[in-house]
Amino acid sequence: MPLLVTGTIGIDTVHTPSAKAEKVSGGSCAYFAAASAFHHQPVRIVGAVGGDWPDNHATLLESIDGLCLEGLERRSESKTFAWGGRYFDNMNQRETLFTELGVLEEAPPEVPDSYSDSRIIFLANSHPSVQLDLLHKFPNRQLAVADTMDLWINIARDELLALFKEIDGLIINDSEAEQLTEIKNPISAAREIINMGPSFVIVKKGEHGAVLVHKDGVAVVPAFPLELEGVIDPTGAGDSFAGGFMGFLASSGKLDFKTMQESMAWGTVTASFTLGSFGLDGLCSTSRAELDSRMNEFKLITKI
Amino acid sequence: MPLLVTGTIGIDTVHTPSAKAEKVSGGSCAYFAAASAFHHQPVRIVGAVGGDWPDNHATLLESIDGLCLEGLERRSESKTFAWGGRYFDNMNQRETLFTELGVLEEAPPEVPDSYSDSRIIFLANSHPSVQLDLLHKFPNRQLAVADTMDLWINIARDELLALFKEIDGLIINDSEAEQLTEIKNPISAAREIINMGPSFVIVKKGEHGAVLVHKDGVAVVPAFPLELEGVIDPTGAGDSFAGGFMGFLASSGKLDFKTMQESMAWGTVTASFTLGSFGLDGLCSTSRAELDSRMNEFKLITKI
Repeated sequence: MPLLVTGTIGIDTVHTPSAKAEKVSGGSCAYFAAASAFHHQPVRIVGAVGGDWPDNHATLLESIDGLCLEGLERRSESKTFAWGGRYFDNMNQRETLFTELGVLEEAPPEVPDSYSDSRIIFLANSHPSVQLDLLHKFPNRQLAVADTMDLWINIARDELLALFKEIDGLIINDSEAEQLTEIKNPISAAREIINMGPSFVIVKKGEHGAVLVHKDGVAVVPAFPLELEGVIDPTGAGDSFAGGFMGFLASSGKLDFKTMQESMAWGTVTASFTLGSFGLDGLCSTSRAELDSRMNEFKLITKI
Repeated sequence: MPLLVTGTIGIDTVHTPSAKAEKVSGGSCAYFAAASAFHHQPVRIVGAVGGDWPDNHATLLESIDGLCLEGLERRSESKTFAWGGRYFDNMNQRETLFTELGVLEEAPPEVPDSYSDSRIIFLANSHPSVQLDLLHKFPNRQLAVADTMDLWINIARDELLALFKEIDGLIINDSEAEQLTEIKNPISAAREIINMGPSFVIVKKGEHGAVLVHKDGVAVVPAFPLELEGVIDPTGAGDSFAGGFMGFLASSGKLDFKTMQESMAWGTVTASFTLGSFGLDGLCSTSRAELDSRMNEFKLITKI
C-alpha cells in the first residue's frame, strides 16, 4: 500500500538543559518519513523547502533508503520553515523561541501525478483546510490519518471538525485531546473525538507512552524506558512515533485493530531512537538490526 | 511464605471535584492488606487504632477473607489516624487538608509472637526508624520492601539511608524518587537508589503506571486504562498496587525478576479497583472472578 506524508521540512534550533544544536534537520514530514521508511518503502513526501535549505539537510534526507522526494518542492526565492525551542529541566515541556513560517505562508506544495495511487495518507500538523484540500486529491485512499495542534484547535475549530468527518484516524497529544474535548481523561477524550468522525484516535503521552481507542478495543503502550543519557532531544519523537506506526501498518497490508496495536509498539520503539540525538541523526544512524533488537528488548520489558 | 504488613489504619475524608466522602475506611496498611489478600493468605497486620475507630470500619476489615488482625491494637484512650485531602481537577494531584496523627504519635504497635515466622515484610510509609525497628524483629525474613514519603526524605534522610541498607526493595512515587536523588529520569533515579542499598526499586507513576528496576532487568507496566467514570477516588491506589504486587509475589513462592514483573501487572490490575470507589469499598466489592477477568483484559490491552 503506497504511503504518503505531507508536512514540514524544517530547520530546527534546539536548546536542552545541557546542550544546544543549531540548524539541525527537522520538521514533521522529515521525522515521519525517516521513521516510516524503516518499515515500508517507498514513502512519498509532499513538502516544500526554500533556497536556504542546507545542503547537508538535503544530503541526509536523500541518504534515507526508500524515500521518494519527487513531491519535495525547492523554492529558491523562499525561506525554509524554521523553528527554535527550549526544553525545560525534565525534557517533557518546552517553549517555542521563534517560528519562521517561510514556505508555509505560500501556496501548499503540488502533488505529483505519480503519487495519485497512494493509499495510506498521513497529514502531519498543518492548517486543517490545507490538510483537507490535500486529502481530497486521494479519493481512492484506504486510510487517512492526521495530526493537529493547539493553535488550530483555538483558531480553526470548524475547519478541524470538517477534517474529522473525512479522516479515519487522529494522532494527538494528551494536552491537545483535553483542550479539544475539555475531558481530562485520555480514553474518554478519545471516545469523544471518535464521536466527531474518526474511527480511531491515538493519544500520545510523551514519556508515558500512548493509547489507542478504536471501535474494536483499547490498546495501551508505554514509552520505551530510556535512561537519562538516552534522552538528548525529544523534538520529532511524536512524528517519529506516527511514522513508525503508519509505516508498519502500511507494510502489513492490514488495517484492523490488532495490527494497529502491533504498529503502536513499532512506533514507540522507532521513536525511541529519535530521542537519542539531535535532529534526524538518531533515526539515520540506526540500523534495522538495532531497531529489531530494541523491539525484542521492549517485548521483554513490557511482558505480562 | 507468610506475609506481614505494617502501616496506618486510618479514617479518611476525601474531596474530589465531583464528590465528597467523610470518614471512610483507609490507611496504607488497610489498602495493602485488602489488595494482597486477593493473592495470598493469611496477610498479617501490624497496626493500631483508637477508641474512635468506627464500627463499620472494623466490620469491613474483618469481612476480608484471609486477613489476620491479631496484630491490630485497639487503644480505647487514643485517637485513630485521620487524614483529609482534596483532589484537583485531573485527579493526579492533591492537597492535604488535615492530618491527625493520633496513635502514630504513640509507641509503635507490638508484633505478636505468632507473627515471628513471617517471611515477607512490607513496611508501608512511616518514620524510617520505626520501619527499621520493626524490620529487626524478623531476622529470618526472605524479603523486606518499604515505601516512604517526601516528609522523611526531607527530615529523616540519614535514618532513611540506614533503612535502605537493610531492605530488599523500595516502592516509591516518581516525584519522591526525583526528590531523593535529584535525578529527573525514573529509571536513572531508581539505579541511584539501588546504589544506596535495595536490590530493586519500583517507581510508581500514578495513572502512567510503574517501572521496576532490578539487577536482572527493567520492567515497565502501564496503568490499567480507566475511563472518566472509573476514577472516583485515587486514595490508596499506590498502597493497593504494593499489596497486589507483594501478595502475588508471596503466593508464587519465587522472588526472581520475572515473577516480580508478573506481580507488577497484578498490582496494577488490583489497584484499578481501588480507584472505582471511595475507601476500601472498591476492593471489598470486587470478586476474584472480576479480578481475573480484568487481568485478562489487561493482557489484551497491553499485548505487543
